[in-house]
Amino acid sequence: MDLAKKLVDKMMNGDAFSQWLGIEVFEISNDFCKLQMTVREEMTNGFNIAHGGIAYSLADSCLAFAANSDGIQSVSIETSISHTKKVKSGDILTATSKEINKSNKTALYYITITNQDKLEVAHFKGTVYRTSKEWFPEK
Amino acid sequence: MDLAKKLVDKMMNGDAFSQWLGIEVFEISNDFCKLQMTVREEMTNGFNIAHGGIAYSLADSCLAFAANSDGIQSVSIETSISHTKKVKSGDILTATSKEINKSNKTALYYITITNQDKLEVAHFKGTVYRTSKEWFPEK
Amino acid sequence: MDLAKKLVDKMMNGDAFSQWLGIEVFEISNDFCKLQMTVREEMTNGFNIAHGGIAYSLADSCLAFAANSDGIQSVSIETSISHTKKVKSGDILTATSKEINKSNKTALYYITITNQDKLEVAHFKGTVYRTSKEWFPEK
Amino acid sequence: MDLAKKLVDKMMNGDAFSQWLGIEVFEISNDFCKLQMTVREEMTNGFNIAHGGIAYSLADSCLAFAANSDGIQSVSIETSISHTKKVKSGDILTATSKEINKSNKTALYYITITNQDKLEVAHFKGTVYRTSKEWFPEK
Repeated sequence: MDLAKKLVDKMMNGDAFSQWLGIEVFEISNDFCKLQMTVREEMTNGFNIAHGGIAYSLADSCLAFAANSDGIQSVSIETSISHTKKVKSGDILTATSKEINKSNKTALYYITITNQDKLEVAHFKGTVYRTSKEWFPEK
Repeated sequence: MDLAKKLVDKMMNGDAFSQWLGIEVFEISNDFCKLQMTVREEMTNGFNIAHGGIAYSLADSCLAFAANSDGIQSVSIETSISHTKKVKSGDILTATSKEINKSNKTALYYITITNQDKLEVAHFKGTVYRTSKEWFPEK
Repeated sequence: MDLAKKLVDKMMNGDAFSQWLGIEVFEISNDFCKLQMTVREEMTNGFNIAHGGIAYSLADSCLAFAANSDGIQSVSIETSISHTKKVKSGDILTATSKEINKSNKTALYYITITNQDKLEVAHFKGTVYRTSKEWFPEK
Repeated sequence: MDLAKKLVDKMMNGDAFSQWLGIEVFEISNDFCKLQMTVREEMTNGFNIAHGGIAYSLADSCLAFAANSDGIQSVSIETSISHTKKVKSGDILTATSKEINKSNKTALYYITITNQDKLEVAHFKGTVYRTSKEWFPEK
Protein backbone atom coordinates (compact mmCIF):
# COMPACT_ATOMS: atom_id res chain seq x y z
CA MET A 1 0.00 0.00 0.00
CA ASP A 2 1.55 3.26 -1.01
CA LEU A 3 2.29 6.17 1.28
CA ALA A 4 -0.41 8.54 0.02
CA LYS A 5 -3.18 5.94 0.41
CA LYS A 6 -1.90 4.84 3.81
CA LEU A 7 -1.90 8.45 4.93
CA VAL A 8 -5.38 9.30 3.74
CA ASP A 9 -6.70 6.14 5.40
CA LYS A 10 -5.13 7.38 8.61
CA MET A 11 -6.53 10.90 8.13
CA MET A 12 -10.03 9.79 7.12
CA ASN A 13 -10.23 7.19 9.87
CA GLY A 14 -12.00 8.95 12.70
CA ASP A 15 -12.44 12.19 10.74
CA ALA A 16 -15.98 12.58 11.98
CA PHE A 17 -16.80 15.70 9.98
CA SER A 18 -15.59 14.39 6.61
CA GLN A 19 -17.70 11.30 7.34
CA TRP A 20 -20.72 13.45 8.16
CA LEU A 21 -20.19 15.23 4.85
CA GLY A 22 -20.08 11.82 3.14
CA ILE A 23 -16.72 12.50 1.50
CA GLU A 24 -15.33 9.68 -0.62
CA VAL A 25 -11.74 9.50 -1.80
CA PHE A 26 -11.70 8.98 -5.56
CA GLU A 27 -8.02 9.25 -6.17
CA ILE A 28 -5.02 9.98 -4.03
CA SER A 29 -1.40 9.95 -5.03
CA ASN A 30 1.70 12.00 -4.45
CA ASP A 31 0.51 15.64 -4.45
CA PHE A 32 -2.84 14.90 -6.04
CA CYS A 33 -6.28 14.32 -4.57
CA LYS A 34 -9.79 13.95 -5.95
CA LEU A 35 -12.77 13.77 -3.58
CA GLN A 36 -16.51 13.45 -4.04
CA MET A 37 -19.62 14.04 -1.94
CA THR A 38 -23.36 14.47 -2.38
CA VAL A 39 -25.09 17.55 -0.96
CA ARG A 40 -27.93 16.74 1.45
CA GLU A 41 -30.92 18.78 2.63
CA GLU A 42 -29.31 19.38 6.03
CA MET A 43 -26.37 21.11 4.33
CA THR A 44 -28.53 23.85 2.85
CA ASN A 45 -29.30 27.30 4.14
CA GLY A 46 -33.02 27.52 3.81
CA PHE A 47 -33.22 28.54 0.16
CA ASN A 48 -32.37 24.97 -0.93
CA ILE A 49 -28.88 26.30 -1.69
CA ALA A 50 -25.90 24.66 -0.04
CA HIS A 51 -24.25 26.74 2.70
CA GLY A 52 -20.91 28.16 1.50
CA GLY A 53 -19.22 26.16 4.23
CA ILE A 54 -20.00 22.89 2.45
CA ALA A 55 -17.94 23.54 -0.68
CA TYR A 56 -15.23 25.09 1.50
CA SER A 57 -15.11 22.01 3.73
CA LEU A 58 -14.81 19.64 0.78
CA ALA A 59 -12.01 21.77 -0.72
CA ASP A 60 -10.25 22.06 2.64
CA SER A 61 -10.24 18.25 3.04
CA CYS A 62 -8.91 17.96 -0.51
CA LEU A 63 -6.14 20.43 0.36
CA ALA A 64 -5.22 18.54 3.52
CA PHE A 65 -4.99 15.19 1.72
CA ALA A 66 -3.07 16.56 -1.28
CA ALA A 67 -0.65 18.56 0.85
CA ASN A 68 0.12 15.71 3.25
CA SER A 69 0.28 13.00 0.58
CA ASP A 70 4.06 13.06 0.33
CA GLY A 71 4.34 12.03 3.97
CA ILE A 72 5.41 15.42 5.34
CA GLN A 73 3.02 16.92 7.89
CA SER A 74 1.55 20.12 6.46
CA VAL A 75 -0.84 22.63 7.98
CA SER A 76 -3.09 25.18 6.29
CA ILE A 77 -1.91 28.81 6.57
CA GLU A 78 -4.30 30.70 4.34
CA THR A 79 -7.16 29.64 2.11
CA SER A 80 -9.58 31.48 -0.12
CA ILE A 81 -12.63 30.45 -2.09
CA SER A 82 -14.86 31.97 -4.74
CA HIS A 83 -18.32 30.48 -5.00
CA THR A 84 -19.16 30.93 -8.68
CA LYS A 85 -22.32 28.84 -9.15
CA LYS A 86 -25.09 27.87 -6.77
CA VAL A 87 -24.93 24.38 -5.27
CA LYS A 88 -28.22 22.60 -4.56
CA SER A 89 -29.36 19.69 -2.45
CA GLY A 90 -28.75 16.51 -4.44
CA ASP A 91 -25.76 17.90 -6.33
CA ILE A 92 -22.73 15.64 -6.56
CA LEU A 93 -19.57 17.67 -5.94
CA THR A 94 -16.10 16.65 -7.08
CA ALA A 95 -13.00 18.42 -5.77
CA THR A 96 -9.79 18.10 -7.77
CA SER A 97 -6.45 19.47 -6.60
CA LYS A 98 -3.61 20.94 -8.62
CA GLU A 99 -0.20 21.53 -7.07
CA ILE A 100 0.94 24.99 -8.14
CA ASN A 101 4.13 25.30 -6.14
CA LYS A 102 6.06 23.35 -3.56
CA SER A 103 9.13 24.62 -1.78
CA ASN A 104 10.89 23.34 1.28
CA LYS A 105 8.65 25.22 3.70
CA THR A 106 5.40 26.04 1.91
CA ALA A 107 3.20 24.71 -0.87
CA LEU A 108 0.35 26.18 -2.91
CA TYR A 109 -2.64 24.34 -4.35
CA TYR A 110 -5.59 25.30 -6.52
CA ILE A 111 -8.70 23.18 -6.04
CA THR A 112 -11.64 23.23 -8.41
CA ILE A 113 -15.09 21.97 -7.42
CA THR A 114 -17.41 20.77 -10.16
CA ASN A 115 -20.93 19.43 -10.03
CA GLN A 116 -22.52 16.40 -11.78
CA ASP A 117 -22.93 18.47 -14.97
CA LYS A 118 -19.17 19.27 -15.03
CA LEU A 119 -19.94 22.88 -14.21
CA GLU A 120 -17.38 24.59 -11.98
CA VAL A 121 -19.13 25.77 -8.81
CA ALA A 122 -16.20 26.92 -6.67
CA HIS A 123 -12.52 27.83 -6.96
CA PHE A 124 -10.30 27.39 -3.92
CA LYS A 125 -6.69 28.38 -3.29
CA GLY A 126 -4.76 27.01 -0.32
CA THR A 127 -1.30 27.65 1.07
CA VAL A 128 0.20 25.23 3.59
CA TYR A 129 3.23 25.28 5.84
CA ARG A 130 5.34 22.13 5.58
CA THR A 131 6.51 21.26 9.09
CA SER A 132 9.24 18.82 8.00
CA LYS A 133 7.85 16.25 10.46
CA GLU A 134 7.14 12.93 8.78
CA TRP A 135 3.83 11.14 9.18
CA PHE A 136 5.46 7.71 9.25
CA PRO A 137 9.05 8.15 10.38
CA GLU A 138 11.30 5.19 9.66
CA LYS A 139 12.44 3.55 12.81
CA MET B 1 -39.13 44.46 15.17
CA ASP B 2 -36.30 46.04 13.29
CA LEU B 3 -35.20 45.14 9.79
CA ALA B 4 -31.92 43.40 10.67
CA LYS B 5 -33.60 41.10 13.23
CA LYS B 6 -36.50 40.37 10.93
CA LEU B 7 -34.09 39.46 8.18
CA VAL B 8 -31.90 37.16 10.24
CA ASP B 9 -35.02 35.42 11.54
CA LYS B 10 -35.99 34.83 7.93
CA MET B 11 -32.50 33.65 6.99
CA MET B 12 -32.02 31.40 10.03
CA ASN B 13 -35.50 29.92 9.75
CA GLY B 14 -35.02 26.78 7.74
CA ASP B 15 -31.24 27.23 7.50
CA ALA B 16 -30.64 23.55 8.20
CA PHE B 17 -26.86 23.73 8.22
CA SER B 18 -26.58 26.69 10.60
CA GLN B 19 -28.97 24.80 12.85
CA TRP B 20 -26.84 21.65 12.63
CA LEU B 21 -23.84 23.79 13.61
CA GLY B 22 -25.84 25.10 16.57
CA ILE B 23 -25.31 28.72 15.63
CA GLU B 24 -26.95 31.28 17.91
CA VAL B 25 -27.41 34.92 17.02
CA PHE B 26 -25.96 37.08 19.79
CA GLU B 27 -26.36 40.45 18.20
CA ILE B 28 -27.56 41.71 14.88
CA SER B 29 -27.98 45.26 13.76
CA ASN B 30 -27.35 47.34 10.69
CA ASP B 31 -24.03 46.07 9.26
CA PHE B 32 -23.03 44.20 12.40
CA CYS B 33 -23.38 40.59 13.45
CA LYS B 34 -22.14 38.47 16.34
CA LEU B 35 -22.71 34.71 16.35
CA GLN B 36 -21.82 31.88 18.69
CA MET B 37 -21.60 28.09 18.51
CA THR B 38 -20.08 25.19 20.44
CA VAL B 39 -17.80 22.73 18.65
CA ARG B 40 -18.96 19.10 18.90
CA GLU B 41 -17.09 15.82 18.48
CA GLU B 42 -18.70 15.24 15.08
CA MET B 43 -17.16 18.48 13.79
CA THR B 44 -13.59 17.28 14.36
CA ASN B 45 -11.17 15.64 11.98
CA GLY B 46 -9.93 12.70 13.95
CA PHE B 47 -7.21 14.47 15.91
CA ASN B 48 -9.84 16.08 18.16
CA ILE B 49 -9.22 19.27 16.20
CA ALA B 50 -12.16 20.97 14.51
CA HIS B 51 -12.19 20.66 10.71
CA GLY B 52 -11.24 23.97 9.06
CA GLY B 53 -14.70 24.03 7.50
CA ILE B 54 -16.34 24.63 10.88
CA ALA B 55 -14.75 28.02 11.58
CA TYR B 56 -15.23 28.94 7.92
CA SER B 57 -18.94 28.05 8.06
CA LEU B 58 -19.50 30.13 11.20
CA ALA B 59 -17.69 33.10 9.62
CA ASP B 60 -19.55 32.68 6.35
CA SER B 61 -22.92 32.78 8.17
CA CYS B 62 -21.73 35.88 10.05
CA LEU B 63 -20.80 37.49 6.72
CA ALA B 64 -24.18 36.65 5.19
CA PHE B 65 -26.12 38.11 8.12
CA ALA B 66 -23.97 41.25 8.41
CA ALA B 67 -23.99 41.92 4.67
CA ASN B 68 -27.73 41.47 4.28
CA SER B 69 -28.68 43.29 7.47
CA ASP B 70 -29.45 46.56 5.72
CA GLY B 71 -32.19 44.87 3.73
CA ILE B 72 -30.32 44.72 0.40
CA GLN B 73 -29.75 41.22 -0.95
CA SER B 74 -26.02 40.52 -1.03
CA VAL B 75 -24.10 37.49 -2.22
CA SER B 76 -20.58 36.34 -1.39
CA ILE B 77 -18.01 36.88 -4.17
CA GLU B 78 -14.72 35.98 -2.54
CA THR B 79 -13.78 34.92 0.97
CA SER B 80 -10.52 34.00 2.64
CA ILE B 81 -9.64 32.63 6.06
CA SER B 82 -6.48 32.13 8.11
CA HIS B 83 -6.73 29.53 10.83
CA THR B 84 -4.33 30.83 13.46
CA LYS B 85 -5.04 28.65 16.51
CA LYS B 86 -6.34 25.10 16.84
CA VAL B 87 -10.02 24.69 17.67
CA LYS B 88 -11.03 21.72 19.83
CA SER B 89 -14.20 19.85 20.60
CA GLY B 90 -16.02 21.70 23.38
CA ASP B 91 -14.66 25.11 22.39
CA ILE B 92 -17.19 27.93 22.26
CA LEU B 93 -16.59 30.05 19.16
CA THR B 94 -17.74 33.65 18.74
CA ALA B 95 -17.69 35.34 15.34
CA THR B 96 -17.76 39.14 15.25
CA SER B 97 -18.05 41.14 12.04
CA LYS B 98 -16.53 44.50 11.16
CA GLU B 99 -17.65 46.43 8.10
CA ILE B 100 -14.55 47.69 6.33
CA ASN B 101 -16.08 49.20 3.23
CA LYS B 102 -19.47 49.53 1.62
CA SER B 103 -20.09 50.97 -1.80
CA ASN B 104 -23.11 50.86 -4.02
CA LYS B 105 -22.21 47.50 -5.55
CA THR B 106 -19.81 45.73 -3.18
CA ALA B 107 -18.97 45.55 0.51
CA LEU B 108 -16.02 44.21 2.48
CA TYR B 109 -16.09 42.67 5.96
CA TYR B 110 -13.46 41.34 8.35
CA ILE B 111 -14.69 38.67 10.74
CA THR B 112 -12.73 37.54 13.78
CA ILE B 113 -13.42 34.23 15.53
CA THR B 114 -12.45 33.93 19.18
CA ASN B 115 -12.76 31.03 21.61
CA GLN B 116 -13.99 30.93 25.24
CA ASP B 117 -10.58 32.18 26.43
CA LYS B 118 -10.85 35.28 24.17
CA LEU B 119 -8.06 33.89 21.98
CA GLU B 120 -8.39 34.63 18.28
CA VAL B 121 -8.55 31.35 16.38
CA ALA B 122 -9.40 32.48 12.85
CA HIS B 123 -9.42 35.64 10.70
CA PHE B 124 -11.85 35.83 7.80
CA LYS B 125 -12.23 38.39 5.03
CA GLY B 126 -15.33 38.47 2.85
CA THR B 127 -16.38 40.51 -0.16
CA VAL B 128 -20.01 40.57 -1.26
CA TYR B 129 -21.85 41.84 -4.29
CA ARG B 130 -24.86 43.99 -3.43
CA THR B 131 -27.63 43.09 -5.86
CA SER B 132 -29.80 46.17 -5.18
CA LYS B 133 -32.80 43.87 -4.70
CA GLU B 134 -34.56 44.48 -1.39
CA TRP B 135 -35.41 41.65 0.98
CA PHE B 136 -38.69 43.26 2.01
CA PRO B 137 -39.78 45.57 -0.78
CA GLU B 138 -42.42 48.08 0.23
CA LYS B 139 -45.66 47.46 -1.55
CA MET C 1 -9.06 46.50 -35.76
CA ASP C 2 -10.84 44.32 -33.26
CA LEU C 3 -12.41 45.50 -30.03
CA ALA C 4 -9.86 43.99 -27.61
CA LYS C 5 -6.89 45.53 -29.42
CA LYS C 6 -8.63 48.88 -29.78
CA LEU C 7 -9.37 48.84 -26.06
CA VAL C 8 -5.87 47.96 -24.91
CA ASP C 9 -4.47 50.67 -27.17
CA LYS C 10 -6.79 53.08 -25.43
CA MET C 11 -5.86 51.78 -21.97
CA MET C 12 -2.09 51.65 -22.62
CA ASN C 13 -2.04 55.06 -24.28
CA GLY C 14 -1.17 57.46 -21.51
CA ASP C 15 -0.81 54.69 -18.90
CA ALA C 16 2.32 56.24 -17.50
CA PHE C 17 3.05 53.54 -14.95
CA SER C 18 2.74 50.60 -17.36
CA GLN C 19 5.08 52.52 -19.65
CA TRP C 20 7.56 53.08 -16.81
CA LEU C 21 7.41 49.34 -16.16
CA GLY C 22 8.12 48.75 -19.86
CA ILE C 23 5.09 46.51 -20.33
CA GLU C 24 4.57 45.19 -23.85
CA VAL C 25 1.34 43.61 -25.03
CA PHE C 26 2.11 40.21 -26.57
CA GLU C 27 -1.39 39.04 -27.17
CA ILE C 28 -4.82 40.40 -26.47
CA SER C 29 -8.12 38.93 -27.47
CA ASN C 30 -11.54 38.42 -25.99
CA ASP C 31 -10.92 37.48 -22.33
CA PHE C 32 -7.24 36.71 -22.81
CA CYS C 33 -4.11 38.75 -22.28
CA LYS C 34 -0.38 38.07 -22.36
CA LEU C 35 2.07 40.77 -21.28
CA GLN C 36 5.85 40.99 -20.99
CA MET C 37 8.38 43.23 -19.26
CA THR C 38 12.03 43.23 -18.24
CA VAL C 39 13.00 43.87 -14.64
CA ARG C 40 15.39 46.78 -14.17
CA GLU C 41 17.75 47.68 -11.34
CA GLU C 42 15.46 50.49 -10.16
CA MET C 43 12.67 47.93 -9.56
CA THR C 44 14.67 46.00 -6.97
CA ASN C 45 14.69 46.29 -3.21
CA GLY C 46 18.34 46.47 -2.41
CA PHE C 47 19.09 42.74 -2.40
CA ASN C 48 18.96 42.67 -6.21
CA ILE C 49 15.55 41.07 -5.84
CA ALA C 50 12.55 42.69 -7.51
CA HIS C 51 10.14 44.39 -5.11
CA GLY C 52 6.93 42.35 -4.75
CA GLY C 53 5.03 45.28 -6.22
CA ILE C 54 6.61 44.72 -9.64
CA ALA C 55 5.13 41.28 -10.29
CA TYR C 56 1.85 42.48 -8.75
CA SER C 57 1.73 45.51 -11.06
CA LEU C 58 2.35 43.40 -14.16
CA ALA C 59 -0.37 40.94 -13.11
CA ASP C 60 -2.78 43.76 -12.25
CA SER C 61 -2.33 45.29 -15.72
CA CYS C 62 -2.88 41.85 -17.25
CA LEU C 63 -6.09 41.51 -15.21
CA ALA C 64 -7.32 44.93 -16.30
CA PHE C 65 -6.71 44.23 -19.99
CA ALA C 66 -8.20 40.71 -19.90
CA ALA C 67 -11.24 41.77 -17.90
CA ASN C 68 -12.05 44.77 -20.08
CA SER C 69 -11.29 43.06 -23.39
CA ASP C 70 -14.92 42.26 -24.13
CA GLY C 71 -15.75 45.97 -24.14
CA ILE C 72 -17.54 46.07 -20.78
CA GLN C 73 -15.94 48.37 -18.21
CA SER C 74 -14.69 46.26 -15.31
CA VAL C 75 -13.02 47.27 -12.06
CA SER C 76 -10.88 45.23 -9.70
CA ILE C 77 -12.60 44.21 -6.44
CA GLU C 78 -10.12 41.88 -4.80
CA THR C 79 -6.75 40.51 -5.87
CA SER C 80 -4.24 38.18 -4.26
CA ILE C 81 -0.74 37.09 -5.19
CA SER C 82 1.72 34.44 -4.05
CA HIS C 83 5.35 35.15 -4.87
CA THR C 84 6.81 31.68 -5.28
CA LYS C 85 10.27 32.32 -6.77
CA LYS C 86 12.64 35.26 -6.50
CA VAL C 87 12.68 37.71 -9.40
CA LYS C 88 15.97 39.39 -10.24
CA SER C 89 17.10 42.43 -12.19
CA GLY C 90 17.35 41.44 -15.85
CA ASP C 91 14.62 38.80 -15.63
CA ILE C 92 12.04 38.84 -18.42
CA LEU C 93 8.57 38.34 -16.94
CA THR C 94 5.57 37.09 -18.88
CA ALA C 95 2.05 37.34 -17.45
CA THR C 96 -0.63 35.09 -18.92
CA SER C 97 -4.30 35.31 -17.97
CA LYS C 98 -6.87 32.54 -17.68
CA GLU C 99 -10.55 33.34 -17.36
CA ILE C 100 -11.96 31.11 -14.62
CA ASN C 101 -15.48 32.44 -14.39
CA LYS C 102 -17.59 35.18 -15.89
CA SER C 103 -21.09 36.05 -14.82
CA ASN C 104 -23.22 39.06 -15.49
CA LYS C 105 -21.78 41.09 -12.63
CA THR C 106 -18.39 39.62 -11.72
CA ALA C 107 -15.52 37.71 -13.32
CA LEU C 108 -12.59 35.74 -11.93
CA TYR C 109 -9.13 35.39 -13.50
CA TYR C 110 -5.98 33.48 -12.63
CA ILE C 111 -2.75 35.03 -13.87
CA THR C 112 0.56 33.20 -13.93
CA ILE C 113 3.89 35.00 -14.17
CA THR C 114 6.85 33.13 -15.59
CA ASN C 115 10.45 34.17 -16.15
CA GLN C 116 12.74 33.66 -19.17
CA ASP C 117 13.47 30.10 -18.01
CA LYS C 118 9.73 29.24 -18.02
CA LEU C 119 9.79 29.03 -14.23
CA GLU C 120 6.63 30.25 -12.51
CA VAL C 121 7.54 33.11 -10.19
CA ALA C 122 4.12 34.36 -9.08
CA HIS C 123 0.47 33.30 -9.02
CA PHE C 124 -2.21 35.97 -9.03
CA LYS C 125 -5.98 35.73 -8.60
CA GLY C 126 -8.25 38.66 -9.45
CA THR C 127 -11.95 39.30 -9.14
CA VAL C 128 -13.56 42.18 -11.02
CA TYR C 129 -16.95 43.86 -10.94
CA ARG C 130 -18.49 44.27 -14.39
CA THR C 131 -20.16 47.66 -14.47
CA SER C 132 -22.28 46.99 -17.59
CA LYS C 133 -21.04 50.27 -19.08
CA GLU C 134 -19.55 49.81 -22.53
CA TRP C 135 -16.15 51.21 -23.48
CA PHE C 136 -17.26 52.07 -27.01
CA PRO C 137 -21.02 52.50 -26.96
CA GLU C 138 -22.63 52.38 -30.37
CA LYS C 139 -24.12 55.69 -31.27
CA MET D 1 19.56 52.90 17.87
CA ASP D 2 16.97 50.23 18.31
CA LEU D 3 16.72 47.03 16.30
CA ALA D 4 13.63 47.93 14.25
CA LYS D 5 15.07 51.28 13.11
CA LYS D 6 18.47 49.75 12.38
CA LEU D 7 16.77 47.08 10.29
CA VAL D 8 14.59 49.43 8.26
CA ASP D 9 17.61 51.63 7.57
CA LYS D 10 19.32 48.53 6.22
CA MET D 11 16.28 47.51 4.17
CA MET D 12 15.57 50.99 2.80
CA ASN D 13 19.23 51.66 2.01
CA GLY D 14 19.60 50.69 -1.62
CA ASP D 15 15.92 49.77 -1.99
CA ALA D 16 15.71 51.47 -5.35
CA PHE D 17 12.01 50.88 -5.92
CA SER D 18 10.85 52.18 -2.54
CA GLN D 19 13.00 55.23 -3.23
CA TRP D 20 11.43 55.66 -6.67
CA LEU D 21 8.03 55.50 -4.97
CA GLY D 22 9.20 58.18 -2.53
CA ILE D 23 8.33 56.11 0.52
CA GLU D 24 9.11 57.71 3.86
CA VAL D 25 9.20 55.82 7.13
CA PHE D 26 6.97 57.58 9.65
CA GLU D 27 7.17 55.11 12.46
CA ILE D 28 8.81 51.78 12.94
CA SER D 29 8.92 49.70 16.08
CA ASN D 30 8.63 46.09 17.07
CA ASP D 31 5.86 44.67 14.84
CA PHE D 32 4.54 48.05 13.74
CA CYS D 33 5.19 50.18 10.71
CA LYS D 34 3.71 53.37 9.27
CA LEU D 35 4.81 54.60 5.84
CA GLN D 36 3.89 57.55 3.65
CA MET D 37 4.26 58.50 -0.01
CA THR D 38 2.83 60.97 -2.51
CA VAL D 39 1.32 59.72 -5.76
CA ARG D 40 2.92 61.22 -8.87
CA GLU D 41 1.68 61.55 -12.45
CA GLU D 42 3.98 58.75 -13.63
CA MET D 43 2.26 56.33 -11.23
CA THR D 44 -1.11 56.72 -12.89
CA ASN D 45 -2.77 54.61 -15.55
CA GLY D 46 -3.96 57.17 -18.02
CA PHE D 47 -7.22 58.10 -16.34
CA ASN D 48 -5.34 60.12 -13.71
CA ILE D 49 -6.02 57.22 -11.35
CA ALA D 50 -3.09 55.53 -9.64
CA HIS D 51 -2.28 52.06 -10.98
CA GLY D 52 -3.34 49.35 -8.49
CA GLY D 53 0.31 48.36 -8.19
CA ILE D 54 1.15 51.60 -6.39
CA ALA D 55 -1.01 51.01 -3.31
CA TYR D 56 0.04 47.34 -3.37
CA SER D 57 3.73 48.28 -3.43
CA LEU D 58 3.37 50.69 -0.52
CA ALA D 59 1.49 48.04 1.50
CA ASP D 60 4.00 45.34 0.58
CA SER D 61 6.89 47.50 1.82
CA CYS D 62 4.93 48.17 5.02
CA LEU D 63 4.44 44.41 5.45
CA ALA D 64 8.14 43.71 4.89
CA PHE D 65 9.23 46.31 7.43
CA ALA D 66 6.65 45.32 10.07
CA ALA D 67 7.30 41.60 9.67
CA ASN D 68 11.08 41.90 9.86
CA SER D 69 11.11 44.50 12.64
CA ASP D 70 11.74 41.96 15.41
CA GLY D 71 15.03 41.00 13.77
CA ILE D 72 13.88 37.63 12.37
CA GLN D 73 14.09 37.36 8.58
CA SER D 74 10.59 36.95 7.19
CA VAL D 75 9.40 36.46 3.62
CA SER D 76 5.98 37.10 2.10
CA ILE D 77 3.94 33.96 1.34
CA GLU D 78 0.57 35.30 0.31
CA THR D 79 -0.87 38.77 0.09
CA SER D 80 -4.24 40.18 -0.95
CA ILE D 81 -5.57 43.67 -1.47
CA SER D 82 -8.94 45.29 -2.00
CA HIS D 83 -8.86 48.69 -3.67
CA THR D 84 -11.90 50.42 -2.18
CA LYS D 85 -11.49 54.06 -3.27
CA LYS D 86 -9.78 55.63 -6.25
CA VAL D 87 -6.32 57.08 -5.69
CA LYS D 88 -5.32 60.15 -7.70
CA SER D 89 -2.13 61.89 -8.64
CA GLY D 90 -1.18 64.21 -5.77
CA ASP D 91 -2.80 62.06 -3.10
CA ILE D 92 -0.72 61.44 0.02
CA LEU D 93 -1.01 57.79 1.04
CA THR D 94 -0.33 56.47 4.52
CA ALA D 95 0.05 52.74 5.18
CA THR D 96 -0.41 51.51 8.75
CA SER D 97 0.21 47.92 9.80
CA LYS D 98 -1.56 45.86 12.44
CA GLU D 99 -0.15 42.55 13.61
CA ILE D 100 -3.01 40.06 13.71
CA ASN D 101 -1.15 36.90 14.59
CA LYS D 102 2.42 35.78 15.12
CA SER D 103 3.47 32.21 15.68
CA ASN D 104 6.85 30.57 15.53
CA LYS D 105 6.74 30.03 11.77
CA THR D 106 4.22 32.45 10.29
CA ALA D 107 2.72 35.86 10.97
CA LEU D 108 -0.34 37.69 9.68
CA TYR D 109 -0.73 41.46 9.19
CA TYR D 110 -3.54 43.74 8.08
CA ILE D 111 -2.44 46.97 6.47
CA THR D 112 -4.77 49.90 5.85
CA ILE D 113 -3.99 52.64 3.37
CA THR D 114 -5.58 56.03 3.88
CA ASN D 115 -5.34 59.25 1.88
CA GLN D 116 -4.83 62.86 3.03
CA ASP D 117 -8.55 63.10 3.87
CA LYS D 118 -8.31 60.07 6.22
CA LEU D 119 -10.39 58.04 3.76
CA GLU D 120 -9.45 54.39 3.52
CA VAL D 121 -8.45 53.62 -0.07
CA ALA D 122 -7.10 50.07 0.20
CA HIS D 123 -7.11 47.09 2.57
CA PHE D 124 -4.21 44.67 2.44
CA LYS D 125 -3.67 41.32 4.17
CA GLY D 126 -0.25 39.68 4.25
CA THR D 127 1.06 36.38 5.54
CA VAL D 128 4.78 35.85 6.00
CA TYR D 129 6.99 32.87 6.71
CA ARG D 130 9.44 33.47 9.56
CA THR D 131 12.72 31.82 8.59
CA SER D 132 14.26 31.86 12.10
CA LYS D 133 17.41 33.45 10.65
CA GLU D 134 18.38 36.64 12.47
CA TRP D 135 19.16 39.87 10.63
CA PHE D 136 21.90 40.82 13.07
CA PRO D 137 23.19 37.64 14.70
CA GLU D 138 25.19 38.19 17.85
CA LYS D 139 28.77 37.23 17.41
